[in-house]
Amino acid sequence: MENAFSDRINDVPKSFIREILKVTIDASIISFAGGLPNRAFFPVKALQKASNAVFEQAGAEVLQYANSEGYIGLREQISERYRKRDGLDIAPEDILITTGSQQGLDLLGKTFLNEGDDLIIEEPGYLGAIQAFALYRPRFHPVPVGEGGMDTEKLSLVLQERSPKLLYTVTNFQNPSGISYSNENRKAVADLVQGSSCIIIQDDPYGALRFSGEPKISFKQLAPDNTVLLGSFSKTVAPALRLGWLVAPPGIMDKLIIAKQAADLHSDYLAQRILHRYLADNDIDAHVATIVAQYGKQKEAMIGAINDFFPAGIQCTNPEGGMFLWITLPETMSSMALFEAAIQKKVAFVPGTPFYVDRKDSNTLRLNFSCSDEPTIVEGIKRLAESIRELS
Amino acid sequence: MENAFSDRINDVPKSFIREILKVTIDASIISFAGGLPNRAFFPVKALQKASNAVFEQAGAEVLQYANSEGYIGLREQISERYRKRDGLDIAPEDILITTGSQQGLDLLGKTFLNEGDDLIIEEPGYLGAIQAFALYRPRFHPVPVGEGGMDTEKLSLVLQERSPKLLYTVTNFQNPSGISYSNENRKAVADLVQGSSCIIIQDDPYGALRFSGEPKISFKQLAPDNTVLLGSFSKTVAPALRLGWLVAPPGIMDKLIIAKQAADLHSDYLAQRILHRYLADNDIDAHVATIVAQYGKQKEAMIGAINDFFPAGIQCTNPEGGMFLWITLPETMSSMALFEAAIQKKVAFVPGTPFYVDRKDSNTLRLNFSCSDEPTIVEGIKRLAESIRELS
Repeated sequence: MENAFSDRINDVPKSFIREILKVTIDASIISFAGGLPNRAFFPVKALQKASNAVFEQAGAEVLQYANSEGYIGLREQISERYRKRDGLDIAPEDILITTGSQQGLDLLGKTFLNEGDDLIIEEPGYLGAIQAFALYRPRFHPVPVGEGGMDTEKLSLVLQERSPKLLYTVTNFQNPSGISYSNENRKAVADLVQGSSCIIIQDDPYGALRFSGEPKISFKQLAPDNTVLLGSFSKTVAPALRLGWLVAPPGIMDKLIIAKQAADLHSDYLAQRILHRYLADNDIDAHVATIVAQYGKQKEAMIGAINDFFPAGIQCTNPEGGMFLWITLPETMSSMALFEAAIQKKVAFVPGTPFYVDRKDSNTLRLNFSCSDEPTIVEGIKRLAESIRELS
Repeated sequence: MENAFSDRINDVPKSFIREILKVTIDASIISFAGGLPNRAFFPVKALQKASNAVFEQAGAEVLQYANSEGYIGLREQISERYRKRDGLDIAPEDILITTGSQQGLDLLGKTFLNEGDDLIIEEPGYLGAIQAFALYRPRFHPVPVGEGGMDTEKLSLVLQERSPKLLYTVTNFQNPSGISYSNENRKAVADLVQGSSCIIIQDDPYGALRFSGEPKISFKQLAPDNTVLLGSFSKTVAPALRLGWLVAPPGIMDKLIIAKQAADLHSDYLAQRILHRYLADNDIDAHVATIVAQYGKQKEAMIGAINDFFPAGIQCTNPEGGMFLWITLPETMSSMALFEAAIQKKVAFVPGTPFYVDRKDSNTLRLNFSCSDEPTIVEGIKRLAESIRELS
């Protein structure tokens, strides 16, 4: 059967995270492995109210096929939010509603990538992006990211030696590392890319979840012709609805709409209308502020416990927002080995492996802090510290 | 910019239907062009009730990320329905919930097709399938379908000369032609395919909409190892939810799930839960029977008006279900030219062109009868008859 499949699907390994999450179904395990927003903040009542309003006011219309671009009212709200929050002037017509921002990645891969095309991705990078792009069989060029942003020396080299079509970035509170690009780093990246035909994909699922520090400048301001933005409601409202969006100039949008039609005709229209009603009737900024306050406390608890319990020689990022920390163990320690040891102590995390294009074993790992309360975080970090000591 | 895009997207023309539907926004036009189910039958109240039940009984859980395969309760309902209605024994684990059955097509293309692989498609064929598969750049082998089913002589030739990976079929009330494969034809097709590595995709969005005649045997019974089934709730419940499904054996399913994760992680989970609740609390068979009764009357009205008003020498299919009729004009008459003339008389349809892989101008056209009441159908067919006479 194997040779009946496409080369692209034979090349993509089964999701690593999926296998790990299976282990963590055991309720006695403290899991820092997930990438989920905290369900305690899902606006259940407000969405139910919005749903009833939509059924009553719009009736059968919201159950019919709809246009591929998405509900114009929702795209206007997104446009308005860019204007108010980011000072960005983005026309609703330049916004495409996607089935989660994951679909945005698939549509971009489909629209831009021929087999063997060059693509720059952060290292470590978002594994969902690696997976989505891998299906179009590009040549990946990982460029390291760390505190402050992307390694511009390495980026410059790749841009000189190759002609990458896409540069994938998560500039705010990156998944997996939690790092953010500084304004200086953004400017340096934009300067390098501008004038080339490389498109910067600025994926921003966590941007609204800022605990501290100042919002940073967008690539849309620095390199407007070279930038595509991805956004998501999964971390601010609810992931189940699978609603995200993509911002692209008209020349690119025309192609993306062809890809969108072929992919699923349009995203769930009832969900779009419910979300639109919810955003119209509720103060989303106040809602997000509640989430941010709690995630911020949980991050502090995790950083505090790491400082208290981890042995010396272990590095940890200190994000200004988002849902993840990134741990660098001593060079000789394998995070895959640590994972096995930690599961024995009933604590789980994601080893660095799936965040590297070459899936190498590494001394790095990701910790999620959005889904555990503070005492659980402290207990889990204690267990993890014990596992590290055992392996040292 | 053009050369920045992938070859696949540069090759796919903008949706023809989309352009046509723009013309029909004019309310004075009687449109037989759409492919929409009749919104008069959308169960607005029952879905609202189901939505409230889900919010109240399940709360935050239905707003969280969910598994890629889809909600097990919904997959069990689909499995049960196959057992009861079709006598098919399909395990819920062999069912993948997709974002409309359109996504099923994209996932199958992604999972099976390398560039240049051979693919058999009906001629005329469903344009959404042509569009979805075209993005994976296969070599299309159109095989004619007509009253009774697929041209097995031509099919046999293609199977002998090439090694097609996929054979795409809509065996019940096909879009665009309305034809169905007879049991004899299904057996002949299955016999030809069995033993080869070709997968038959049996897409069945309209199967439940039968006005007359007997249900036919499934490829799943005739060639179980070679068959993938696609299904949809768009024509029986509501299209806006974008919920369909795919049935495949485990060896194929594993690959499809990888493709599904990369495409959108999972389909809208709230919508899955609402649909599940709706199906649990309502008699879907009774609901579909109401739709079928009305569509059947509308089809009779259209066939009657065609017999009354069309000039001689025009052929028309007489479907036992579904939403479409297929007209064959005299050989010298172009349906594109007729479209221009008909728009002047305020009646619209879809010319045959987009249903042919080579997009040739043709003397064929598709008429939709699901969305217009009987007097409107008669008036529209009168206008169309006048346009035909003018062109003759």
